[in-house]
Amino acid sequence: MTVTTTSTAAPASSAGAAGAAGAVRPRRDDRLPERLARSAAERAEGAQLRTEDFADWLAERRRAHRFAVERIPFAELDGWSFAPDSGDLVHRSGRFFTVEGLRVEVDEGPFRRWEQPIIRQPEVGILGILAKEFDGVLHFLMQAKMEPGNRNLLQLSPTVQATRSNYTRVHRGANVRYVEHFTRPGEGRVLADVLQSEHGSWFLRKSNRNMLVEAVGDVPAHDDFCWLTLGQIGELLRADNVVNMDARTVLACAPVADVESRALHPDTDLLSWFTGERSRHEVRTERVPLSRVAGWVRDESSIHHADGRYFRVVAVSVEAGNREVKGWTQPLFEPVGLGVTAFLTRRFDGVPHLLAHARVEGGFLDTVELGPTVQYTPGNYAHLPRADRPPFLDLVLAAPPERVRYEAVHSEEGGRFLNAESRYLFVEVDESQVPADPPPGYRWVTPGQLTSLVRHGHYVNVQARTLLAALNTGAVEL
Amino acid sequence: MTVTTTSTAAPASSAGAAGAAGAVRPRRDDRLPERLARSAAERAEGAQLRTEDFADWLAERRRAHRFAVERIPFAELDGWSFAPDSGDLVHRSGRFFTVEGLRVEVDEGPFRRWEQPIIRQPEVGILGILAKEFDGVLHFLMQAKMEPGNRNLLQLSPTVQATRSNYTRVHRGANVRYVEHFTRPGEGRVLADVLQSEHGSWFLRKSNRNMLVEAVGDVPAHDDFCWLTLGQIGELLRADNVVNMDARTVLACAPVADVESRALHPDTDLLSWFTGERSRHEVRTERVPLSRVAGWVRDESSIHHADGRYFRVVAVSVEAGNREVKGWTQPLFEPVGLGVTAFLTRRFDGVPHLLAHARVEGGFLDTVELGPTVQYTPGNYAHLPRADRPPFLDLVLAAPPERVRYEAVHSEEGGRFLNAESRYLFVEVDESQVPADPPPGYRWVTPGQLTSLVRHGHYVNVQARTLLAALNTGAVEL
Repeated sequence: MTVTTTSTAAPASSAGAAGAAGAVRPRRDDRLPERLARSAAERAEGAQLRTEDFADWLAERRRAHRFAVERIPFAELDGWSFAPDSGDLVHRSGRFFTVEGLRVEVDEGPFRRWEQPIIRQPEVGILGILAKEFDGVLHFLMQAKMEPGNRNLLQLSPTVQATRSNYTRVHRGANVRYVEHFTRPGEGRVLADVLQSEHGSWFLRKSNRNMLVEAVGDVPAHDDFCWLTLGQIGELLRADNVVNMDARTVLACAPVADVESRALHPDTDLLSWFTGERSRHEVRTERVPLSRVAGWVRDESSIHHADGRYFRVVAVSVEAGNREVKGWTQPLFEPVGLGVTAFLTRRFDGVPHLLAHARVEGGFLDTVELGPTVQYTPGNYAHLPRADRPPFLDLVLAAPPERVRYEAVHSEEGGRFLNAESRYLFVEVDESQVPADPPPGYRWVTPGQLTSLVRHGHYVNVQARTLLAALNTGAVEL
Repeated sequence: MTVTTTSTAAPASSAGAAGAAGAVRPRRDDRLPERLARSAAERAEGAQLRTEDFADWLAERRRAHRFAVERIPFAELDGWSFAPDSGDLVHRSGRFFTVEGLRVEVDEGPFRRWEQPIIRQPEVGILGILAKEFDGVLHFLMQAKMEPGNRNLLQLSPTVQATRSNYTRVHRGANVRYVEHFTRPGEGRVLADVLQSEHGSWFLRKSNRNMLVEAVGDVPAHDDFCWLTLGQIGELLRADNVVNMDARTVLACAPVADVESRALHPDTDLLSWFTGERSRHEVRTERVPLSRVAGWVRDESSIHHADGRYFRVVAVSVEAGNREVKGWTQPLFEPVGLGVTAFLTRRFDGVPHLLAHARVEGGFLDTVELGPTVQYTPGNYAHLPRADRPPFLDLVLAAPPERVRYEAVHSEEGGRFLNAESRYLFVEVDESQVPADPPPGYRWVTPGQLTSLVRHGHYVNVQARTLLAALNTGAVEL
């Protein structure tokens, strides 16, 4: 089907070219936050479908394609092999990604020094969502996309989710639909465009380009694509495993209204605290050959930790009908156990705040990013004394239902991670549970402060961005 | 001498603690830009001295101390040696910095692949300037500080300029004066605090913490320190080699008024262009042992390029009277030739703009930062065909005097670089010389856009920050 626009076209303006004849323009678009709020308010129905009909639409897309993913031994990987010298897991093209070893030394916490496999993928990919007004309301073009690592395979992804290998045809597959809106200057109006980190525990210094672009002119929606309002996406974010990680991180970057003029910490103080956190940690990382990563064991079909913790490197074979290529094999990281990822929330003088954590992750480009209050996989800590359990975890696990403002299970990137799921929560607390001055490494911030930071890269980690997406789309209100 | 404050104290507010009893505060300090503008307007006289008397004050400080720097062969370095395996130049403490080798591969320009010595200094240092109101005008506490690499040895530096080794006493020398204002939360009111890159051609991923802190309570000025207004510092920035690099980079981070509401490119488009520049470049770096850096030769007293270009690694012996320690030896990087570093400027609809260049430097943490239009050392390009000369260089070199809005020679960091000097310029151009749409990699930006970017790290390189400091202090008006 094709949805046609009934709105007046937004003024064309591109990141690529200067204004006509050197004319200056307003530096800020004051109408955009209102337009995003209007889209977030439309929860029940959009130009293409009613929210209650979405499940049928997704089921239809699932029926329209044949997908099959099965685990295989490493020996059955096609094009992938362990390099003779290093034991690194590499593709013969030299592209895509490699699995290598990393040694990490940090200066606090229960784990001070360890080695682990890590994914190195130096290419910057594009995660792009196309926006367009229908009947005066911004809609976003979402894709029903199969990813081999997702338990339910098909989830709602950005319009474009492509590594450079994808769209420069290293895959030798089909063209990436709609990618020209994101790669060609002048094709649309950029609403957000920022390099953001991915999982710092599993990726070495990986960034993706998160883009929101408002289309100019008609955009036909292919069968696997669906125009949804921000509010409709918010409704879908209340369900488990519908909106994929790549969609969530882009939605987190939407320039929604930053409404709080007051906060516990002025913006400059918040930046100063963050700078202090980034400065005070020394994180030393060194690549090591995968074959010599201490504490990890390789067998025919996995590389796993000797104690069974953390994650496994495994291999899968994929058959798919709506991907750029028809079938392939690849390695995936499979975490051990369901994660728990939560922001604690409190109001101060009526202003909502979230408790952010300055997290060290070995794969971050720069030492520290702001994560949720709790970001934890139980199995990794079960063997440790109680004092080494993550702070605030028990507050989340023991929260009475009326304090849980949001809860849903979401998957991490299904192109690299197998069954990597986490319970995402917002949990309300009070002064008796967490004071205004939390322990070192934690800080109360407003949603607007996170929104102002996420305009720039490497401040807000990918897990916190999932929770920010829930706020931006109205899936949770504080 | 001691200058005492006559102002009402600024309200105490620290980055370290939340407001009293969880009270929220305004997120932005709307008075601060006005207070900085008022300080910049005071050009002739400050609370401590008249600007015309500054040269005498500095000469007196020079007389008060004995300084001697002499070149020595590597064999006379004390505590420094070439590591037996790698040939890296290291200190026996394992601290300070090391000189290692780096292999760099980039994807455009006349140099695509090279190897070079590089300084690795993983510690984050503090560059901090203390501010205080006298008679209602903000003054900044500047230090007359000897650095061995500066041709005139003594220049005006920040209040505190210290590596972590300095202030944690690895030097085993005297305490760093005033450092407690920057390291202890609650001692002052933070005006700016951001991690900024240093020279990406000479440092591997080096960041320093750039801080401006307004003091609470009396601050006695030690003999080597001087309270100056922003306008007085601007006057001094018009002279050659008075204000050192560390002072300039901190002054660039001053949160001055961002006055332009209109620009050739809206802020989101500018960020998008920057993200695109950062994404489209692939920079591959790999450390190599210093003893095996291709194209470089080590003799008794230098490591130099076989063709005599770029820079030399040399060693010096230092005797000083006002440093934390009395004497020491150390390596320095000595560039070959005087650099040329310039912003081209133009007005569009009356709004001043600077032509920024998205520069790739091998040592940047993340591929690209915004540099000046021209940043160039003639000797490095003299052997190349004319087409490979840097764009816009001839416009700068051939500019008629009435188009040169600013020109001064400044030194780079005298603690690491020997006689590293560059002519810094602002040169006005018109439509016939540079259009509104410049070549790829270049973009017209307003001073306010640079000010908004420099609140965050790794957007604006250290050379562009020197030129921004000239703007912030009123040394140049566009």
